[in-house]
Amino acid sequence: MDVVVIDQNNFYLFQPLLYQVASAVLNPSDIAGPIRRIFRDQPNVLVALGEVTSIDLANKKLTVKGDTRDFDYLILSVGAVDNYFYHEEWKDVAPGLKTMESALGIRGKILLSFEAAELEGDPDARRARLTFVIIGGGPTGIELAGAIKELAVDIIAKDFRLANLQSTRVILIEAGERLLPSMHSDCSQRALRDLQELGVEVMLGRPVTKINKNGVCIGDDFIRSENMIWAAGIRAHPLTQALGIELGPGGRIPVEPDLSIKGYPYAFAIGDVSSVQDPKTGTPVPWVAPAAVQMGRYVADCIRAEAMGRPSTRTRPFRYRNRGIMATIGRRRAVAEVKGFRFGGFFAWCLWLFIHILFLIGFRSRIFTVLSWIQSYLFFQYGVRLIIGKEKDFALVKPVQKET
Amino acid sequence: MDVVVIDQNNFYLFQPLLYQVASAVLNPSDIAGPIRRIFRDQPNVLVALGEVTSIDLANKKLTVKGDTRDFDYLILSVGAVDNYFYHEEWKDVAPGLKTMESALGIRGKILLSFEAAELEGDPDARRARLTFVIIGGGPTGIELAGAIKELAVDIIAKDFRLANLQSTRVILIEAGERLLPSMHSDCSQRALRDLQELGVEVMLGRPVTKINKNGVCIGDDFIRSENMIWAAGIRAHPLTQALGIELGPGGRIPVEPDLSIKGYPYAFAIGDVSSVQDPKTGTPVPWVAPAAVQMGRYVADCIRAEAMGRPSTRTRPFRYRNRGIMATIGRRRAVAEVKGFRFGGFFAWCLWLFIHILFLIGFRSRIFTVLSWIQSYLFFQYGVRLIIGKEKDFALVKPVQKET
Repeated sequence: MDVVVIDQNNFYLFQPLLYQVASAVLNPSDIAGPIRRIFRDQPNVLVALGEVTSIDLANKKLTVKGDTRDFDYLILSVGAVDNYFYHEEWKDVAPGLKTMESALGIRGKILLSFEAAELEGDPDARRARLTFVIIGGGPTGIELAGAIKELAVDIIAKDFRLANLQSTRVILIEAGERLLPSMHSDCSQRALRDLQELGVEVMLGRPVTKINKNGVCIGDDFIRSENMIWAAGIRAHPLTQALGIELGPGGRIPVEPDLSIKGYPYAFAIGDVSSVQDPKTGTPVPWVAPAAVQMGRYVADCIRAEAMGRPSTRTRPFRYRNRGIMATIGRRRAVAEVKGFRFGGFFAWCLWLFIHILFLIGFRSRIFTVLSWIQSYLFFQYGVRLIIGKEKDFALVKPVQKET
Repeated sequence: MDVVVIDQNNFYLFQPLLYQVASAVLNPSDIAGPIRRIFRDQPNVLVALGEVTSIDLANKKLTVKGDTRDFDYLILSVGAVDNYFYHEEWKDVAPGLKTMESALGIRGKILLSFEAAELEGDPDARRARLTFVIIGGGPTGIELAGAIKELAVDIIAKDFRLANLQSTRVILIEAGERLLPSMHSDCSQRALRDLQELGVEVMLGRPVTKINKNGVCIGDDFIRSENMIWAAGIRAHPLTQALGIELGPGGRIPVEPDLSIKGYPYAFAIGDVSSVQDPKTGTPVPWVAPAAVQMGRYVADCIRAEAMGRPSTRTRPFRYRNRGIMATIGRRRAVAEVKGFRFGGFFAWCLWLFIHILFLIGFRSRIFTVLSWIQSYLFFQYGVRLIIGKEKDFALVKPVQKET
């Protein structure tokens, strides 16, 4: 059996820690590594760097940059992109955190804001540079808010002379009535309290109505800011739209209980691109990393059995085993929900650290991440405070426009 | 006394290890760190991110992006850029290795070449992607050549299925008659032998006459290659040309024995932008990092004495203390010249490792670099094999043009 792994990046990415690249704690290589390294000892696996541009499900063909190939089985796991809910024009001013490039871009923009604030003479403009607005109160929004607030106040404030980084405002805006809507309301309340203790301003039930380069409108209120980050939602990768099949909400592919695409039993959709209900409870499987991993295992088992002439395992439908859900708030707190138990605080945070180390791939990533965390959390130093590359193009002494 | 440190980057950079970022061994944060972190405990030091656009030596003024400020003393230490010797058009096809951005760009280009070779169907085109030409046989060229050859052959060849990375050619071209012209000819010969043992093809006495995106001309010979790197020389940062003073070769500033600019005793030029002779021997001080550091200390002493009303120390001219010069060849060898002693091989390489760790700034950089080296040199894994950002724009399945 020959396996071809096609990816537009040469690396896998452990997305749950992407916000730590954005907040200057970790290096890209701590949460990413070359895909082909993983398959070094599997001679039947070919890794191809490229972007799939179209898929012909009926004729079992896919095209990578003009090069069309046949397949016997297809596993589509291209993941998600930021969902701006028909406001794509917000993308440039409020980038999301879905790719390594965007994480490095956000890191550069955050650090550059502090640098610019140091040299800014106008108090209003300085305040705008020291105001961070995060849109979306899910795990990513909460984790970013806590990390940025701590970076400014605890880590680098002492390095500045003219700007008072202690005054950095971090504002977390959530359209819904509570944070962490995918968790129990006890966790939402605990996260709210923890964030407020850190000094993050949380606005609930307030949908954003407009974003431009000078700030954010929430109804009639305007918050002037130079730093907006989008964490309000994701949708399936646009490649799903090229399949010519009917899609569910967010461009997701409704799949059969065996995760295959309706009418194409040899084509599977897993992870953030698929929409599947638990066969017993009827609840949708959440779009989280553990679910995607479990789907991958399930589909691999099905295909392997069929390819080896054994009875197919796909008669037993996919079931998601929820091992728990967590979110971290700054350097000392987290909330967790595991099999009906809900807890928070320092113990939850330690558990969070342990689990995330466990799921990193490779010895190097683990040891380097542990060392970076020791440096950050015990010695209050963030190690990757570098502004590299085109992020510097954000002009430094640029006058901030006064109009909204 | 108020000190303002102006830099166009927010980080210092330990340039001697930049080639290890380019060859995927080290992360940027291993050899760079925030400038303002260094001065955290010195309240009279202000760090300003910005690019100096002009300097008025006579009126003691300098301009940073339209903002003009006065100074009492000036220390100009803006360093060097690649010298293409009136062939600036070669810059795009044969980038140099002077900045963090260029190191990351070269890393991306090298890794992308291997990826493209894996998918390339045409044998000639594949060969061009697996041919690396390094122009310049100084320390940077030698270190890059050894590192790229080892990366291809020892580290990642096993991860590829279709392309034979063992066949990767690394060609080092030097216009002069020997490698390492700044060292004794014994070292040159040893470096040549070591490189040839590694499988690097060395061409001596062969000036490059033309470079385009398809390869390099050396007289009538043409070497087809997709990967050219420029390491053939440096010149002073172009800011020196804005000073309105007479410059020496390479745009360097000829300075007085006290390192001040002739006619402007309050303005000093140090490091790669200055040209100074040793007062006793009459030989020029080499443009190497240890000389720049010594110049910095000398000038700081002068200014501090004068500012505090003590007798100036500048009556005693600057003297360079040469503590030795080294270059490393791959993972086991180096050549060194210390106080007339010349040696090479494994012992020199261990000394090289030790000294470079010693000169890294900060505990984090040291520990992370040591761990990366252990991983690379003992376990044969390079840790930062990531293609991130715009380097991906080098189209992947692009047909290589046949004409030269």
